Amino acid sequence: METVFFVTGFIGVIAVGIAFLLAKKIAGYDSGNERMREISEYIHKGALAFLKSEYKYLSVFISAVFFILIFAISLKTAMAFVLGAVFSILAGFFGMTVATKANVRTAEAARHSQSRALKIAFSGGAVMGLSVVGLGVIGIGFLLSIFSDDTSSLTGFALGASSIALFARVGGGIFTKAADVGADLVGKVEAHIPEDDPRNPAVIADNVGDNVGDVAGMGADLFESYVGSIISSVTLGYIVLDKFGAVFPLLLTSIGIIASIAGIYIAANGRGNNPQKSLNMGTYTAGIIVIIGTLVLSYLVLDSISAFFAVTVGLLVGILIGRITEVYTSADFRSVKNIALESVSGSATNIISGLGVGMFSTMIPTLLIVTGVLVSYFVMGGVDDPTMGLYGISLAAVGMLSTTGITVAVDAYGPIADNAGGIAQMADLPPEVREITDRLDSVGNTTAAIGKGFAIGSAALTALSLFASYAESVELTSINLLNPLSLVGLLIGGMLPFLFAALTMNSVGKAANEMVTEVRRQFREIEGIMEGTGKPDYDRCVAISTKAALREMILPGVLAVVIPVVVGLLFGPETLGGLIAGAVVTGVLLAIMMSNAGGAWDNAKKYIESGEHGGKGSDAHTAGVVGDTVGDPFKDTSGPSMNILIKLMSIVSLVFAPVILEYGGIIIKLFN
Amino acid sequence: METVFFVTGFIGVIAVGIAFLLAKKIAGYDSGNERMREISEYIHKGALAFLKSEYKYLSVFISAVFFILIFAISLKTAMAFVLGAVFSILAGFFGMTVATKANVRTAEAARHSQSRALKIAFSGGAVMGLSVVGLGVIGIGFLLSIFSDDTSSLTGFALGASSIALFARVGGGIFTKAADVGADLVGKVEAHIPEDDPRNPAVIADNVGDNVGDVAGMGADLFESYVGSIISSVTLGYIVLDKFGAVFPLLLTSIGIIASIAGIYIAANGRGNNPQKSLNMGTYTAGIIVIIGTLVLSYLVLDSISAFFAVTVGLLVGILIGRITEVYTSADFRSVKNIALESVSGSATNIISGLGVGMFSTMIPTLLIVTGVLVSYFVMGGVDDPTMGLYGISLAAVGMLSTTGITVAVDAYGPIADNAGGIAQMADLPPEVREITDRLDSVGNTTAAIGKGFAIGSAALTALSLFASYAESVELTSINLLNPLSLVGLLIGGMLPFLFAALTMNSVGKAANEMVTEVRRQFREIEGIMEGTGKPDYDRCVAISTKAALREMILPGVLAVVIPVVVGLLFGPETLGGLIAGAVVTGVLLAIMMSNAGGAWDNAKKYIESGEHGGKGSDAHTAGVVGDTVGDPFKDTSGPSMNILIKLMSIVSLVFAPVILEYGGIIIKLFN
Repeated sequence: METVFFVTGFIGVIAVGIAFLLAKKIAGYDSGNERMREISEYIHKGALAFLKSEYKYLSVFISAVFFILIFAISLKTAMAFVLGAVFSILAGFFGMTVATKANVRTAEAARHSQSRALKIAFSGGAVMGLSVVGLGVIGIGFLLSIFSDDTSSLTGFALGASSIALFARVGGGIFTKAADVGADLVGKVEAHIPEDDPRNPAVIADNVGDNVGDVAGMGADLFESYVGSIISSVTLGYIVLDKFGAVFPLLLTSIGIIASIAGIYIAANGRGNNPQKSLNMGTYTAGIIVIIGTLVLSYLVLDSISAFFAVTVGLLVGILIGRITEVYTSADFRSVKNIALESVSGSATNIISGLGVGMFSTMIPTLLIVTGVLVSYFVMGGVDDPTMGLYGISLAAVGMLSTTGITVAVDAYGPIADNAGGIAQMADLPPEVREITDRLDSVGNTTAAIGKGFAIGSAALTALSLFASYAESVELTSINLLNPLSLVGLLIGGMLPFLFAALTMNSVGKAANEMVTEVRRQFREIEGIMEGTGKPDYDRCVAISTKAALREMILPGVLAVVIPVVVGLLFGPETLGGLIAGAVVTGVLLAIMMSNAGGAWDNAKKYIESGEHGGKGSDAHTAGVVGDTVGDPFKDTSGPSMNILIKLMSIVSLVFAPVILEYGGIIIKLFN
Repeated sequence: METVFFVTGFIGVIAVGIAFLLAKKIAGYDSGNERMREISEYIHKGALAFLKSEYKYLSVFISAVFFILIFAISLKTAMAFVLGAVFSILAGFFGMTVATKANVRTAEAARHSQSRALKIAFSGGAVMGLSVVGLGVIGIGFLLSIFSDDTSSLTGFALGASSIALFARVGGGIFTKAADVGADLVGKVEAHIPEDDPRNPAVIADNVGDNVGDVAGMGADLFESYVGSIISSVTLGYIVLDKFGAVFPLLLTSIGIIASIAGIYIAANGRGNNPQKSLNMGTYTAGIIVIIGTLVLSYLVLDSISAFFAVTVGLLVGILIGRITEVYTSADFRSVKNIALESVSGSATNIISGLGVGMFSTMIPTLLIVTGVLVSYFVMGGVDDPTMGLYGISLAAVGMLSTTGITVAVDAYGPIADNAGGIAQMADLPPEVREITDRLDSVGNTTAAIGKGFAIGSAALTALSLFASYAESVELTSINLLNPLSLVGLLIGGMLPFLFAALTMNSVGKAANEMVTEVRRQFREIEGIMEGTGKPDYDRCVAISTKAALREMILPGVLAVVIPVVVGLLFGPETLGGLIAGAVVTGVLLAIMMSNAGGAWDNAKKYIESGEHGGKGSDAHTAGVVGDTVGDPFKDTSGPSMNILIKLMSIVSLVFAPVILEYGGIIIKLFN
């Protein structure tokens, strides 16, 4: 048993070690001419400035929750919480620091060859990916070693990860879109200067946003899913199969990390002429290694291949959800082309058809998740032993997330390539360099869409798996919808994602308005800014985005943490169970709808820009820009925030289960 | 017992009798000059043409379902189904015929006085309201008399009502928005002619649409809720309190009809200077009569006042949901003003803030519904006897719908006033006439928003009440979310409203495109059409809307009917239960979001047109028009269709409960 904990932790150390080596290698590459270094330094400093402010808020938050946990639950849980938070912060900090170094080196490498540029950008992403999985299993292995089989404290670790994810994903989402929308509205629309033009004061904030939202935010989101699914599986595994049940997901995770390292090696060293193919090769290799490894593992540890099927179905569902996302968001397929066509009759028809695509796109992912749930439950014999079935669902989640290392690497590659393009533009590099970065960036857009689909699917399975653990913890055998207390929980839970989406969308609107005002002010007051002789005040724009992001995430954050506890205390564990189920259902659906609608609008605009329906400057293009702007907060703020909301509410319920079990249902007790 | 059935039916006959008297009185009013009569005749004929085509489809559909029911359930149920369908058709036909007569007479009356115009318009609405409740209770009373206590056949009646509601609401919604969007896009935007200009070939179709969608569609929707809630309450009442339980909702319904008649009398004879006040007076009077009557009834029939509380909370929740709708959709409050302000920075920010308002507006109605469910369940002693609690929920639904007579009257008044304005415009009546009709119309917009909120609230409670009856019928004591079969049902059910919304939005888009093409063709090919010498081909536009509406509703309609049966047969009754619950949750939320966003966009545009932010022709106005156009299918097609979807799926499940009980769960049985 202890050996397994040690092995798990050791493989985590290897992953982090490789991440360090990669980081060192990246730092050794040429960082270009002085202008490039200067711009890169701005982005790097802006990102650090955001992180510094965020950590101030975080230290208050972490301390407060730490004391609440000591008081309400246990010191062990409180300590695990701090560890989870610190590890998530470390992964984010490390990944983002490297990403902000890899961007300029990618731009420089693009002056020489596409394959070298791809390698650096992807290596930068791999640092994030390996940090996420490495630190995740080091933390879990360490806690298991010292707490041995007291798995309940482990949930504290997941709560820590979840809290940071909230800050990183929601705050990051608001930061990046406030900067993006603000930069576009004044720069592109009013001042008619191109995107990524260094005269635009918000341009650095925009590039910082890519790192804050898409690198650190996405990383924290998947770190949360990753540790949440493992912990929930270990917890359920102990219950149904004693230590064998706990050991299996840990070993599976280790295989997944080794597979990811192999996949990363293949992807980074692929020939550069087809970047998409290299990335796919890496991903598929990792998947195949996991499948073969699990088959062996399933036999050796559990003496049956049922678990193999549960894991494999999870892995496949994850890949398929990612792929189907492409069908709705890529210009190669009908949906996006149709939005472009509808743009010809104006903005309204563009919006209507985009919303239609988003809503329609919920169907297949839902059916895929449903298939994953059913197969993993029944294949593990859930009919005779329901808890065993729930363990199966948690294994599917771990299976889906087993290759998180390479998934995050592929995903974080996108914003690095995007940044590299921005730097090439700002530093006036020759057009053929920009051509290479554009090609890398367009691959990044596809991987981003796939990554978003994957993040939603994994959030759904992780939340369901945590939901099952919660039910075990509060000793529920039934959450009965014919009991109005469950039904009421379901209704309230279903409403919360709508509320959360409304709040985050309004936040982006408010923050973007502040940015617009500031950019206009600088254009007006700084002399020679348009001629390139006056220097825009980049820091001020970064500060505005930072402040707005941190301020605006407080309300949704508090809601996500407080509502489950309050509902549980007032109405009892069954209502809270209904609430989680309701939130998962509408949260997943809204996340899919918003991400896909946003992605589809984005690519419909690009499709028009490529010359269709009159191309740039046509009426169709104007409509396309409107759709794209609506889609920005959809796909990069509100949509991804849903992942955090449903996982955070599940984990909060799980951590506070003992309290709710003892004191829950105050109102009901009053009336009885 | 039989006496009560007789009394119920008799009061229904009185309601229908009064409706006939009102219709006769309306027919006796002056129908204006020749031009007005001509226009009115076009609208009247157009509406009949739509109905005729619709009935062709319906006769096939009704025959098919009739035979399926005989074969799968029973002859009694099949006959009740036909009766329900026929009665719903009758109510719609009668109400719409009178509405298309009342419109021109309202316009003519507006030449003399506002109070007379109000009286005619409202009397026209009252015909629809009284037909709905009258025919509803006649049908139920008749079926109870002949089938005595075999309440299961009654569900056939509700299924009949539900099927027609699908055709009327979804088909009507597509009809009206295809015509509206088509007329606006070519007429207002391209040809720069005002709204309701007789030179626009789609103008008659647009006015027909008001009657088809807002009069007949809304009527059929509430007819369905009305009979569905009564039948479900009678069914549950029999189980828990034998005949007393069945008699109570019937007598309550009778009181509600008497109260509605009294309210209608007061509203129709109020002084005309403040139409909103007259309508409110009528509604409140009816509510107070029901509350007092229920208090007495509760004592006399059930020997306790618990039922009084259940009924009252339902009634109050209905009124409050309606009122809160106003807060989000009226220009007197912050939400709409904020959308107008955001319109200044363009279409994208207008759309984002409108979607935000819609999403945010789900919170309070959800909490109101939750309160209604909890109070009505617990006050009836649901803790000790769950079925009794479910009976309480059904009583809340009946309570909410008890004053349907006046609610529909107020609601149907709106499109009549709107039509009257259109006729005044087309017939070139003097501006002071148009002023009066505009004032009546603006009151109609408020009542429409309130009515939409009420329709959603009542659909939610009715669906939950049918859901409870379904669970009883398939002998479920638990729909356990920890059983993945329920959870899977919940996920699929939750996804269906998104799919349904996507399909109906796309349908409006397609149909509107056909209309645009036709209007452009007529402008191009008919000589002298712009000078008023050539006559536009109105019939052709009506035919296009008709054809598109009926064609486009087939797929969503089939899905709504087939999916519950297929899921029940494949996965069994518990999965189907989860499916209904999931559909109700997301259906209600999407309905609220779409209706309120649509209403808010509409009024934000009107607010800008009133001179704010630059008024008509400003950039803010352009953005406002985009929001309004997106809101059209939201609030008049997809949003209201959700009501039908959730009720229809519940009722289909209830009717096919015996089949699902016996053969359900084929896949599960295969694996066991």
